[in-house]
Amino acid sequence: MSIQTTAIVARSPGPNGPKWALEEVEAVSSLGAGEVLVEMVATGVCHTDLVLSGVPEGMMGIHYPKVMGHEGAGYIRAISPITKSVSIGDPVLLSFQSCGACTQCRRQHPAHCAHFNQLNCTGKEGRFLSQATTAAAGQSAKEGIWGSFFGQSSYAKFSVVHESCLVNVKDVLRNPSDLATFAPMGCSFQTGVGAVRNVAAAGEDDVLLVMGLGGVGMASVMAGKVNNCKTIIALDKQEARLQVARSLGATHTINTVPAEADSVFDFEQAVRAICPDGPSIVIDTTGVPKLVEAGLETACARGKLIMIGATPFGYTLDIKGLEHIFSGKSVIGCVEGDCVPKEAITEMIKWYYEGRFPIDKLTTYIPLKEYQKALAGLAAGEIIKAVLLWEEESPADNSLSKSSETKCAEHSGDLSASRI
Amino acid sequence: MSIQTTAIVARSPGPNGPKWALEEVEAVSSLGAGEVLVEMVATGVCHTDLVLSGVPEGMMGIHYPKVMGHEGAGYIRAISPITKSVSIGDPVLLSFQSCGACTQCRRQHPAHCAHFNQLNCTGKEGRFLSQATTAAAGQSAKEGIWGSFFGQSSYAKFSVVHESCLVNVKDVLRNPSDLATFAPMGCSFQTGVGAVRNVAAAGEDDVLLVMGLGGVGMASVMAGKVNNCKTIIALDKQEARLQVARSLGATHTINTVPAEADSVFDFEQAVRAICPDGPSIVIDTTGVPKLVEAGLETACARGKLIMIGATPFGYTLDIKGLEHIFSGKSVIGCVEGDCVPKEAITEMIKWYYEGRFPIDKLTTYIPLKEYQKALAGLAAGEIIKAVLLWEEESPADNSLSKSSETKCAEHSGDLSASRI
Repeated sequence: MSIQTTAIVARSPGPNGPKWALEEVEAVSSLGAGEVLVEMVATGVCHTDLVLSGVPEGMMGIHYPKVMGHEGAGYIRAISPITKSVSIGDPVLLSFQSCGACTQCRRQHPAHCAHFNQLNCTGKEGRFLSQATTAAAGQSAKEGIWGSFFGQSSYAKFSVVHESCLVNVKDVLRNPSDLATFAPMGCSFQTGVGAVRNVAAAGEDDVLLVMGLGGVGMASVMAGKVNNCKTIIALDKQEARLQVARSLGATHTINTVPAEADSVFDFEQAVRAICPDGPSIVIDTTGVPKLVEAGLETACARGKLIMIGATPFGYTLDIKGLEHIFSGKSVIGCVEGDCVPKEAITEMIKWYYEGRFPIDKLTTYIPLKEYQKALAGLAAGEIIKAVLLWEEESPADNSLSKSSETKCAEHSGDLSASRI
Repeated sequence: MSIQTTAIVARSPGPNGPKWALEEVEAVSSLGAGEVLVEMVATGVCHTDLVLSGVPEGMMGIHYPKVMGHEGAGYIRAISPITKSVSIGDPVLLSFQSCGACTQCRRQHPAHCAHFNQLNCTGKEGRFLSQATTAAAGQSAKEGIWGSFFGQSSYAKFSVVHESCLVNVKDVLRNPSDLATFAPMGCSFQTGVGAVRNVAAAGEDDVLLVMGLGGVGMASVMAGKVNNCKTIIALDKQEARLQVARSLGATHTINTVPAEADSVFDFEQAVRAICPDGPSIVIDTTGVPKLVEAGLETACARGKLIMIGATPFGYTLDIKGLEHIFSGKSVIGCVEGDCVPKEAITEMIKWYYEGRFPIDKLTTYIPLKEYQKALAGLAAGEIIKAVLLWEEESPADNSLSKSSETKCAEHSGDLSASRI
């Protein structure tokens, strides 16, 4: 069985970045054990989509063409007989897939599932079929497209999703229109929140430095405020993002691009001017080696460097042995904020309705047909968080208006006067 | 004012290791604010004494001649008017010094005091005076000897000690003879215990790998048992130590020296044969780069590498960026187990009396005049933990007998038949 659907297909990594195409494809909709069919209303656009679509064919088990997308939001349209957590029609947010059986899964750390890479980064062959045909074994056949990326491949309006990816929000969603707003909770927002709360266990005495203000970094800033961190320093190269971070709770900001063109940015000086001892928690969402290294160096005694942003292939962080021992510092790897998605998403939704998680301030809603703008805007850092809307007429009453306001503000630079 | 005392003086780092001399010196006993005079009954011998007496003159602020010793146990003989925590005659265990005022001290993390190095490693000039005289500025003067190492310089029978080093054990010491037994609690034992309990927060589900079975490593093994870790793997190059570790609670042991001379030790194979996922906590007390690196590599997802053992000068641990992020592992520096000495020592004494901290099994008591044997035995790895006794006739009724039994067992190799 299959169902016709629109999908953004990553055709090849290309010499200058991924080649994308909006195509009508067939989603294989025969449901395996633990699978459901989801109709998307919105999908968040995350850097991981870009990074993993730039990996050469065959490396890390990654193949083309494929359908990415891993911050889906939508409704259940079909279930298998053994589906337990959802019924047809339920609104769901989609997160990463985990096996549920390995040691880390059993201990409620599914982001470190032993099969994470295979389930989430590699995906599965032939989950979509292209209209194009290929000649294989002397026979004409429809071209197979890889899917099940993050168990969901939510860059398709209809997609077969693994049940372990689902968070049923039927009981916590107040307005259907909020579903699109919450789409990025399944990856970037929970990553930023979990880094601060689960991995760093931030508290009132902490001085939090967040490096890089995309969706993950902004979520870390908000989580720092939720956890009452006394100082929250946001660092980025764009003033507009720093302004948004201040509106979210950053007590201080650092622009890594000096105001005067001929001056050089001094990381340590900038940070120590705010906190002489150094930050107690450094969240790196950039993967930029110089920032990672400066973050570790500048952290206070017993400070924690939480590494989230993908560092370049082959990069090693060289830790000075004796110095590290005496410092009592920690260098900690972090995936998905070490979250259990259901718990994290339920909590973020609660905060949103309490006004403590104002993600509208950083989200740009973009209609599907303008998906290239979302991908390019994210890559260029012009958009903090893009959410693609699958309907021309947004399912959210206010989504399009939010979108236009956000865009307006981003272009005018007058953030204070807008809803941002 | 000064008082005559015997002291082990580190005369110079020497080309082949520290040059030590047992000398009659004067301890400057005029008490500054927050200082007391302690008469030692015993002093533990720790690797740090050896390491910091091998540092060239002037490096790291270290100078010669000096009196080391930082696991002192004794009695208060004089106090200053502002002394609060002890009275004359109180039995005390000595730990490291901290300033009490910096951020980490105020937050109850004195092992990461901002002034730790200066207070503990550098010490103070002229705290002892040699019988020898030097010609300075045209006048004959007594030779000054550096002291206040770890705020105590307890390689002297009488020493002026900073009050922040003191743990008053008057209310918990059941037998005076136990004071010598508890001497190493102020450094090596609390380091091993704190690494497991404070830094790693080990629990029932943890697989603990302890690398290096000196006083620190053995304490980690015992703490792993106290914390009910399901698997405790002890790794060392000496079978006799592995046997002791088993008697302390190690569930598995790994000898890094293969039984057959022509075979090569395979760390990963040896560890995975015990725990296929890898250990969740790796405590390194060796500082041996190959072990540190293999420990990190072999740790399970979200595993913690706790670095305690001093790595070689200039050594860097190269962490693979992307791999570290995905692994969720932590690389954590650790000093003194991040302990508050009073709390840690009180707890260890309680466990000792409950039979849960059988440190007699690993301690060799050595009379002062044989101090060279203690230092050499520790350096060579032949002694797990040496405690020097300052009286010919031990203040502990049973200390000398313990000592001879321990030595006997170590030399006979028949550990099962002795008290070890």
